[in-house]
Amino acid sequence: MTKFGERWNAGLRELIAEAGVNAMKDAGIPGEQIDALYGGTMASGSLIGQEHITALIADYMGLNPIPATRVEAACASGGVALRTAYMAVASGLHDTVVVGGVEKMTDVSTGDATIALGGAGDQEWELFNGATFPALYALAARRHMFEYGTTEEQMAAVAVKNHANAAKNPFAQFTKEITLETVMNSKVIADPLKLMDCSPISDGAAAVILMPLDKAKEHTDKPVEIVASAQASDTLALQSRKSLTSLRATQVAAEKAYRLAGIKPSDVNVCEVHDCFTIAEILAIEDLGFFKKGEGGKATEEGETALNSRISVNTSGGLKGCGHPVGATGVKQAVEIAWQLRGDGGRRQVKDARIGMTHNVGGSGATAVVSVMRRAD
Amino acid sequence: MTKFGERWNAGLRELIAEAGVNAMKDAGIPGEQIDALYGGTMASGSLIGQEHITALIADYMGLNPIPATRVEAACASGGVALRTAYMAVASGLHDTVVVGGVEKMTDVSTGDATIALGGAGDQEWELFNGATFPALYALAARRHMFEYGTTEEQMAAVAVKNHANAAKNPFAQFTKEITLETVMNSKVIADPLKLMDCSPISDGAAAVILMPLDKAKEHTDKPVEIVASAQASDTLALQSRKSLTSLRATQVAAEKAYRLAGIKPSDVNVCEVHDCFTIAEILAIEDLGFFKKGEGGKATEEGETALNSRISVNTSGGLKGCGHPVGATGVKQAVEIAWQLRGDGGRRQVKDARIGMTHNVGGSGATAVVSVMRRAD
Repeated sequence: MTKFGERWNAGLRELIAEAGVNAMKDAGIPGEQIDALYGGTMASGSLIGQEHITALIADYMGLNPIPATRVEAACASGGVALRTAYMAVASGLHDTVVVGGVEKMTDVSTGDATIALGGAGDQEWELFNGATFPALYALAARRHMFEYGTTEEQMAAVAVKNHANAAKNPFAQFTKEITLETVMNSKVIADPLKLMDCSPISDGAAAVILMPLDKAKEHTDKPVEIVASAQASDTLALQSRKSLTSLRATQVAAEKAYRLAGIKPSDVNVCEVHDCFTIAEILAIEDLGFFKKGEGGKATEEGETALNSRISVNTSGGLKGCGHPVGATGVKQAVEIAWQLRGDGGRRQVKDARIGMTHNVGGSGATAVVSVMRRAD
Repeated sequence: MTKFGERWNAGLRELIAEAGVNAMKDAGIPGEQIDALYGGTMASGSLIGQEHITALIADYMGLNPIPATRVEAACASGGVALRTAYMAVASGLHDTVVVGGVEKMTDVSTGDATIALGGAGDQEWELFNGATFPALYALAARRHMFEYGTTEEQMAAVAVKNHANAAKNPFAQFTKEITLETVMNSKVIADPLKLMDCSPISDGAAAVILMPLDKAKEHTDKPVEIVASAQASDTLALQSRKSLTSLRATQVAAEKAYRLAGIKPSDVNVCEVHDCFTIAEILAIEDLGFFKKGEGGKATEEGETALNSRISVNTSGGLKGCGHPVGATGVKQAVEIAWQLRGDGGRRQVKDARIGMTHNVGGSGATAVVSVMRRAD
């Protein structure tokens, strides 16, 4: 992956090329061995006036004429790209596939980026009426507080933990630890969410290379296997949901992923979850079955999701601390889990990590993708 | 599919729902039997402020929580969606899959639509410098005229033929035949291309349902089999190509599709090709191997691609006559070929059509997808 952040000196093509070359070097795979490319980008049309992004990547990486397919599912674009590429390899249609995720977000104003991101929700029912994403997740936060007594301090604890992890990740956008006071005293964006409850606007890219396991074993002593990858959908507009405090798409995808992998939530050692806002991490660790519904805030506050605790959540720093170039996030999650499973987590290494998981959400939950990965050495 | 055209009374979600319901009725498949959705849309972010389109479709069609994946490859989005869905079924990962293609283009001005479409080419090297798509294809046309003696009248003959076919297609945007004089006397857009050499701005949607062949035979006496589907990429910018008069991505994809299907070009009875401009159809029928390089214009002028001639090309009317809602086009091509192979082509039916093909291009050729279909009764 690339360093995430405000990458003023790099455009989209430079970012994805940097990540792609890093992945190819890491895997020891030259370009001519790659026979398909899958890419995740959310809103390059609105953000940089460029569609046809994955063909552009193949072009800029010198990979023509391989098939190059962009998938888009808002902020879950990277995770859906990973799953689609996994399907391409598992089916035998392609053998060695590169998956890239990228977003260049800082070429437009924060206001324009917020409008572009609003396209992840229901434009006609939500964004048109002024409901940007902080507002939508604020509704979920307020309802979670009402139903389960979750506090603003518990949400703030998510941010404190994720910045602490990010401070140990050289690729993260934010490099300093923060305190509970920093979060609580930050500016209100959409009550009860404050600035430090929100993930940032970021530039960045990530890439991974997939191939059949027996072939991967010829290239590395530390192969990582994708055991299962499941995806589900839900309504775009929050108003159509039965609940504001659960993401049904997460629950359906997780259930299927656990079943396909033959594991249960307590088997997972390390998990990257989709914390676009602090409340989103609380919803995630509940919907993924790590904690009972309503207990995610308390568990976070008590340190049960910290590095090397009951379950290490968002060791990369998550979207909150590592940054959230939307199309890149789902692929970055896979990069972090691969590093953790290989023992390459550096100062944020989870001890004896054998089973990892990624959880990538599009919009306010209209798409969710969950992938289970394990050490295969 | 829906009627293509200026559909002022329908938004994107109404269009795709109309096509989806038509496909489900035609196949006799209720929503609860569908286990995944693939959708092709090019530029909904720029055109209607909405990303996350396929999740939106699943929502609006009542298909939640099935996985819903949008793929984008500019004007080849529909064809790439078809191929990705084909992979999903062929791999056994999913069983009954719906593929939708849709674009709502008339909510913005023609100028804004032209800019959005420019995102299919290389934004930094082409569109930013003023090279819109008519200009790019005009370069190809001029070079083809120079190298092979192709004439403006031969290009105009493509438009005349495709409008003649469109006049027989109740779903087409244009319903009247035109003469060579109409084309030759129309306004110059980018010399030598005139207004009537260009496909229109359109609204529309199309959908097909895929499943394993043995299962399809339980639902219909006239199943159509996708025998092969191949995809290739090329540089986005024309300036990086070795040739302006061939699309390498078309050649690579076609060669692979023929090999996988075990057929040769002369076996194809009916083909939908990507005629975004009249010159594009001439390039296509040469690159697909139906005619020698340089002879496509002459062959068209002599009627060899007309309905029930040597090879029936663009019986639907093509992009030129039937319309070109960009994300819908690749799926619409599959709908037309399925109708032809089933004998449901009405007044434009090709006699004894047994093998059909679709050819969908993204941008000026950075993506091409070729699918071979045959009657399987």
